[in-house]
Order: sequence, then C-alpha cells, then structure tokens
Amino acid sequence: MLAKLWVIKIGGNIIDHPEGLSRFLERFSYLKGNKILVHGGGKIATRIAADLGVEAKLVDGRRITDEAMLRIVTMVYAGLTNKQLVAKLQSHKCNAIGLSGADGNAIRAVKRPVKEIDYGLVGDILPNSVDAEAIATLLDHGFVPVFSAITHDGHGQLLNTNADTIAAALAVALSDRYTTSLVYCFEKPGVLRDINDEASVIPQIRAGEFEQLRSSGIIADGMVPKLHNAFEAIAKGVAEVCIGHADDVLLLREQQFGTRMIR
Amino acid sequence: MLAKLWVIKIGGNIIDHPEGLSRFLERFSYLKGNKILVHGGGKIATRIAADLGVEAKLVDGRRITDEAMLRIVTMVYAGLTNKQLVAKLQSHKCNAIGLSGADGNAIRAVKRPVKEIDYGLVGDILPNSVDAEAIATLLDHGFVPVFSAITHDGHGQLLNTNADTIAAALAVALSDRYTTSLVYCFEKPGVLRDINDEASVIPQIRAGEFEQLRSSGIIADGMVPKLHNAFEAIAKGVAEVCIGHADDVLLLREQQFGTRMIR
Repeated sequence: MLAKLWVIKIGGNIIDHPEGLSRFLERFSYLKGNKILVHGGGKIATRIAADLGVEAKLVDGRRITDEAMLRIVTMVYAGLTNKQLVAKLQSHKCNAIGLSGADGNAIRAVKRPVKEIDYGLVGDILPNSVDAEAIATLLDHGFVPVFSAITHDGHGQLLNTNADTIAAALAVALSDRYTTSLVYCFEKPGVLRDINDEASVIPQIRAGEFEQLRSSGIIADGMVPKLHNAFEAIAKGVAEVCIGHADDVLLLREQQFGTRMIR
Repeated sequence: MLAKLWVIKIGGNIIDHPEGLSRFLERFSYLKGNKILVHGGGKIATRIAADLGVEAKLVDGRRITDEAMLRIVTMVYAGLTNKQLVAKLQSHKCNAIGLSGADGNAIRAVKRPVKEIDYGLVGDILPNSVDAEAIATLLDHGFVPVFSAITHDGHGQLLNTNADTIAAALAVALSDRYTTSLVYCFEKPGVLRDINDEASVIPQIRAGEFEQLRSSGIIADGMVPKLHNAFEAIAKGVAEVCIGHADDVLLLREQQFGTRMIR
C-alpha cells in the first residue's frame, strides 16, 4: 500500500486575511502524513505593482505578465509570501521548505504559445515536467514543500504559473508513489447545491454524476472548469479531489471536508 | 576521508553586474563536488525601497532593518535574486535549490540584542543554530543549496542576516561531515600586499602570520575583520578559507584561487 500524500492549495483570499491564514497554517501543521502546500498570490502583488508604478496589463480581460510584472510576482510570491508562510509553519514545528518550480528543477513549464493573446511570461506545465523523484526525496526526509506559483523553463527564464494548475500537476505526478489527495481550500464550505445556502454542500460527486449536475445547472460558472480539472486529475491517478473551507482542513482526516470528488 | 564541500559566498558587487554574474554562475556550475552558494543583496533592494518610498534608516552610519525594510529584503533577496540565480544555475544543469534560513529550519537566528543601537529585525546566528543534517540531506541527494541572507527565529519572525556570517556558520556547522572550504568571491584577486597593485596577491596566510601582517599594516581596514572571521572559522574546523575574484572560481580546483588561509 502506498503512503498517503496531501497536496493542498490555498487561494489568494486566504493569503489576504491574516487571522484566517494563521488558523489555517496552525491546522495544516497538525495534519499528519506527507503534505505539500501550494499558494496563490493574493492582492499584495497588485498593491506593490501599483506602488512601483507598474500597471497591471489586461488584454480582453486577461492578465498579461510582462517583465516588470514577473519581477514583482517573483518578489512577492516566491519571496515575501512564501517565506512568511514557511516561517509561520516552522513556528508550529512543521518542517516547511519553500520552493518555486525552479528550485531542484521541481516544475518546468513552457512559455504559453502566442495565439490570439500573448500572455507574456506565463508558463504552461507539460506532462512529465514535474520531477517527482526530487519532491519525493524531500517528502521522504520529512520536509513539507511549500510551492509558490512560479516555475521556470529550464533555460534560465522564470514564468508566472497558475497555482491551481501547479497543485494538480504535483498531485498527478506524485500519484504513482503516494495515495494522493488534491485539496483546494477556499472561503466556501464546498460545492453548493444552492449557491445562496452554505448548508447545501454536496458531500460527494462521482465522475459519472458530474455531467448531470452540470447540465441541470447545479454546477455553473467558475465551478465548471474547477470540477472539470478535478475529474481530469482523478482520471490521471489522483485518488480524490476535495474542495472546501480552509478552516475545515483538519476534517480531511475523517473525510468530512467539503465536497469530495472520486472516480 | 570526508567528502569535499565548497561553501561559496558572492557579494552584492557580483550580483549587481549581469555579465560578471553570468560568468560566475557558469563557472560555479562546472565546479565538481558538494557545493553551497550564499549570496548577498546588491543595490536592487535599496532601489526598490526608494521606489516604494521606504527610506533606508541609518543610526550612527549603521543600517537599521525596520519592518518595511525587512519586507523588501525578503522580497528581493529570498525572492527575486534567489530565484533568478537558481533559474540560471538550472540552465547550466546545476541542480540549485534556493533557500532562506527558515526553509527546512536550516538556519535559526536571534534578533540582535539592543545595546547602544537597536538594529531592528537583524538576526545573529548562535552556535548550533544551523541544521547540518537537513543541509547534508540535500547535498547528499545532489541538490546545490543557494542561500539568501534571510534567517528566522523559529517563532515565525524572519530576520535580515549578514551573508558573510551565514556562509561562515554553514561552513563551520558542516565541517564535521565534509572537508569544508569557505570561499569569499569579490571583485579583487585576493588579499593584496600593496592595495594599488593587483598583482601583489598574497597566495597563502597561516594563522600564525596574520597578527604580523596586521601589525605591520599590510592587512588593514575592511580586510582585518574579514580575515579575523576567516581564522575563527578555521579554528572551528573549516579546512581553509579562500578569498579572491569571482571570475577565478574554477582555480579553486588547483589551489590557485586568490588568497588561501589555513591553520
């Protein structure tokens, strides 16, 4: 039987609220077993960009990462946020080690090809571009990798990369070696049957039920791609994908956390 | 016989010059054996601080690290500079892993006690505060740790810490496990007998000769504390301390690099 691995992603909304973030980090520290934390950015990069006079560039509503913006997200995500998270986890005796995809060549990416839009220095993760062995070496020696959403192309270029995608790529790549749960923590208790009722969490969705929930309109908007990606990760070997509130992270232990997606 | 370890520190002057930095990183990649890179800051932190309206605070000519400045050095040293170095080293097939002292609890420090001056969030490294086992685990698995000059106190606080001191503390702590050379790379070819003659490098200084070179005024000014610290590291188990030009780093292989200090 394979050892258990949690790959847990926290969104920018968690990062932006110090009290909720502190609660989450303490609880995450208590979670037993192999674990990886992946963090998004939060609003601080936007604020620092504005203070430095670097304008957020948008094309058709999509954010573009030019060189100036890449420097800022590298500073903020891989520097300030990552090291603050690591220092706080260490204070809870969780042996965190903060990484970007460049570190240990853990996650390579390619600059997104220019089609209608040139997204700039944004990285797409290809299959087999995660070095599972390097990450397993760290896990097996008791380190808790904490990944920021920065990767590299292997030729010296850092790239801004979506944190959800990083978490999924890590979970998929490590599922040969561990029974892997991919967990998305956000500020809702899970996938809701009624978006206005936080008590209407759907506890479990099987792959076969997803299409029906979508066509009936129960799962809509931003949840559709999230769940699509979840079932894709499951098809590639991840044991389960869970989505729920960051405060509830310890409920993962008894399978009572938010919405659980399985094969 | 113990395996060889190089602990190589590059100063801010190297960081600030892209061409020299590229040359150094390529040559560093070619150096065989276990190795650790420690980097200082460079002028970019000062520039970004100015752009963000954060004033460098000086008391009696000494730089003070207040909270705003700590955020900036964490962003720049542990984020931007560290990840750029790592990505470039990876492009040369050197398996760099960028770390602060908080990562893997590698280097703990204590906030410098307030005497005449309150230096703010500056960390002093105590004996036994380097986790040699964690770092050896990384080295023994082929990683090349790249340390920025940020540590933590173990209670969640990051601290700004002198890069020379970090390099010395790492070399001392690892000298039980490796035959350790501590190397300071800067923009001069070594310790000069005549400060105006770059050809006057003193190839070797033994501990017993240091006092005489100092009292005769050949070693003066900023070189005195540097060499004092070098011989202190040697007294604590480091095999040799070398100081020379970053361009010459590969001359370490045949003991032709700058000035070599030995017991």
